[in-house]
Formats: sequence, structure tokens, C-alpha cells
Amino acid sequence: MPDIPKPRANRQRTQTLRGPVPAAEGRQPRGARRKRETRARLLDAALKLMAERGMDSVAINDITEAADVGFGSFYNHFGSKEGIFAALVEWVFEEFADTLDQLARELSDPAEIVAVSVRHTLMRARREPVWGRLLIREGFSVHALGWGLGQRLLRDSQRGISAKRFVVPDHLMCVVSVTGIIFAAIAAELHFALSVAPPVRRQKASGVGGQNFAERVAAVVLQVLGLKRAEAERIAHLPLPTSRSETRVCRAKSRSC
Amino acid sequence: MPDIPKPRANRQRTQTLRGPVPAAEGRQPRGARRKRETRARLLDAALKLMAERGMDSVAINDITEAADVGFGSFYNHFGSKEGIFAALVEWVFEEFADTLDQLARELSDPAEIVAVSVRHTLMRARREPVWGRLLIREGFSVHALGWGLGQRLLRDSQRGISAKRFVVPDHLMCVVSVTGIIFAAIAAELHFALSVAPPVRRQKASGVGGQNFAERVAAVVLQVLGLKRAEAERIAHLPLPTSRSETRVCRAKSRSC
Repeated sequence: MPDIPKPRANRQRTQTLRGPVPAAEGRQPRGARRKRETRARLLDAALKLMAERGMDSVAINDITEAADVGFGSFYNHFGSKEGIFAALVEWVFEEFADTLDQLARELSDPAEIVAVSVRHTLMRARREPVWGRLLIREGFSVHALGWGLGQRLLRDSQRGISAKRFVVPDHLMCVVSVTGIIFAAIAAELHFALSVAPPVRRQKASGVGGQNFAERVAAVVLQVLGLKRAEAERIAHLPLPTSRSETRVCRAKSRSC
Repeated sequence: MPDIPKPRANRQRTQTLRGPVPAAEGRQPRGARRKRETRARLLDAALKLMAERGMDSVAINDITEAADVGFGSFYNHFGSKEGIFAALVEWVFEEFADTLDQLARELSDPAEIVAVSVRHTLMRARREPVWGRLLIREGFSVHALGWGLGQRLLRDSQRGISAKRFVVPDHLMCVVSVTGIIFAAIAAELHFALSVAPPVRRQKASGVGGQNFAERVAAVVLQVLGLKRAEAERIAHLPLPTSRSETRVCRAKSRSC
């Protein structure tokens, strides 16, 4: 498959969104620690604002105000608004793609790889709604297929088609359908539970926000890729592999993962 | 199906986005004509800005500047920013839903109704990209299932399930999948053709922007609803019904439809 853009090789990342992960945080000089905290505040503020409004509608001043950081300090950390946006894109679309590669490293069935990726994406969006909001806001953009997650989807779907595991009329419709279903499912978790539509609201226990929502989305994605329903359901409910690197990143961020 | 929100009854609309359609434009008083032109300029400007950035990131001043209209004049036409946004939503999500109902009025097969709706939605987004951009921007919002297009999708999918024409695991996943595929397909037409991903770009002739793209999207949607591929393809390629009202609206807007 010579035409699929090559995903970047897995790297042992030394940075998370919040900056270098110190080996022993307590021993860091005070200045370095404060600098890291300021960077984290700027990134958190930019994430919330850009997930809500998109990059173009957010000014540097909005970010520094929300982060409670002086305007000039911004430039100690980022060269421009595009710079901080690039850091967020790196985090949402590249770093997470590496996490998925880690999680799927011992799997060989393309269907299982896609199912695991879909479930982890949905679970992460539920855990970190602002991350999910930025993903669906920017995921339809001009550049999204060139970023890590898009490239990974192109690669995995092509692998499944080449191995005759996926049977789809064409690659393009496959990518369009899978992307759309995942984003709509994330939007459903973010929004539809509040919707005025009673059939959706009443399905909450077993539907949006329910325990098995990610698995049901994965099953539909596999059916779109040509698997029979029973097989899709079975694969979508297999035990999830876990990743040491994901655990490490979560701990470094001091967030409940 | 008592729980599906009832779509509003078809109405003989006397207004389009641009205001009342005069029986004989030349005979309108100059003042009334100018007022209508100003309203149309404000709506066109708001549509472009809100499709790009969302309602919250657009100020009334941005709209009047882009429309080249005095700030105070805005209030001769709309009570607030929310007012002009509501007029746009009415146009994108309600008026178009009525157009689809008109187009499908002589069809009885739920699969054919869905296919015609999907194809017309894709064709309109291609013809009027800013309309398409507002649709996919607001279509994932909290309120979208309560608006005309969302209610219509809930109604039509429920009808197909009740008639056993659609076979889906559940109604929620059906709505999520169909919505996602349509929006991703519109985004593909708006953006992906410019993407860095070679497989998608090279498929342009028969893919994104190709003559049969809307039909291929409709076929995938029908497959997601449980139809076999051959049947889905057949229905997706049936001749399209045309609507007198759509022709009239297009002519009134003086746009090439």
C-alpha cells in the first residue's frame, strides 16, 4: 500500500501536553516548576477556548486572561497563537495516535485493532470532554487526514481491505463513514443526552453515556467495514488491552484516567 | 410511534431567508425594496461568519461591518444576535426539512425517502458550501435533534424500523450513524479534496466531488440501516423526484440551483 501516508514511528515521548515529565518533581528548581505550571495553565485555557470556538476566534489575550497569566508571559512559552494550537493538535491527534499504536501493538486482526481504537477514543472523550470537543471540532478540517489519527485510520482501513478482512465498496467511503460515526457518537455523548428528543434521552441507561456505548459504536463501525453483525458484536466486546505508557501519562497529568 | 417528536406540518411558506418574495418585484416601493436588500445583506454576512466561527464568536458589529450596513440598522431587522441566528437555523434546519418533505411526498418506501433526503442534502451542500458548513457546524449541537431536520430523521428512521424495512440494533445508533456519515460526507466535499492525503485526492474523479458521490453516500447510509448492498445501491441510484417549491425558492433567490 504505497500511497498511504506513513504514520510516524512510535517514539518514546518525553513530553506530554503539560511539558517535560520530571523524574522527581520535588527536586525541580522553583523557577523551572513555575515555568512548567504557567505553560500548563496556558495550554489548559487554550484547549477550553479553542475547543469551544475554534482557533481563529480566540485571541492570545483571551488565553492569557483565562489562564490568569500576563500577556507578555505567553511569548516565553509559545511563539504565536498558531504555536499553542499546534501543541494542542500534537496532543489530540498525534500523541493519542501513538497511544493507540501502543495499545494495539500485540494485535494482528485489523478488525480488533479498529475496535480497540474506536473504544479507546470514545472512552477518552467521555473522560475528558474538552479533548473530545477539540477532536470533533478539528477532525473535519482540511488537515485532519494528514495528522496522526487520520493517517492511522487510513493505514488500518487499508490493511483490513488488503487482507480482505474488510469488504467495502471503496476506501474513501470507508474513511468517511468511520470518521463520521465516531464523531457523531462523541457528539452524542457530549450533547445529545441533554437533547430535547425523548427517544434518545430515555435510552440513557443503555444508550448515550451507558456502560456499553463505546462497544456498540465499535460494532457499528465494524459492520460498516463489512463484518457480519454477530462477528462485529463479538469483537467489539473483547477485553481491552491496556498500555503502560497511557498509565504513565495519566499519572503524570495527575488526572483520574 | 408515540414518542417521536412530530415534525411541523408542511406549510406554504411566504418567506425565504431573504424575506417575503414579492409577486412583482418591480412594483415594490423603493423603501420596502431597500429594506429587503439590507436584510438580505445582513443575513448573508451572518451566514458566512457564523458558519465559519459559530454564533458565540460573532458580534453584531462583525455582521454589520461585513454587510456594510450601519450598526443601528441591524435592529430594524433583528432584535438580537440570537434573532438573526434563529433565522439562519430556520432556513438551514426547518425550511430545508419542509423541502425534503415536499420532494418525498409521493414516496412510500422508507428506504427511498431516506435515500432521496441524503442525496438532496449532499447536493445542496455542494451547491451552497456555506449552507453546508453551517449544517455540519450546528448539526452536532444540543438542539439539533429538536430542529426540523433532526426530527425528520428520527421520524423516518422510526418508520423504517416499524415497517421492518430497516434492521438496526437500536434507534439511537441508527440516528448517530446516519447523522455522522452525512456530516462527514459533507465535510469531505468541503475539505478533503484539498487534503494532503493522496488516496483521497486521487479518487476525485469518482470520489469526493464526483458525479455519483451523493448516491454512494446514500447507499452506505441504507446499508447502515440494514439493507443489503445490491438493494441499497439500486435505491440510491433511482431517478430523483423534483419539487416545484424548491424550483420557486431557487428562482426567488436568483441563484443557480
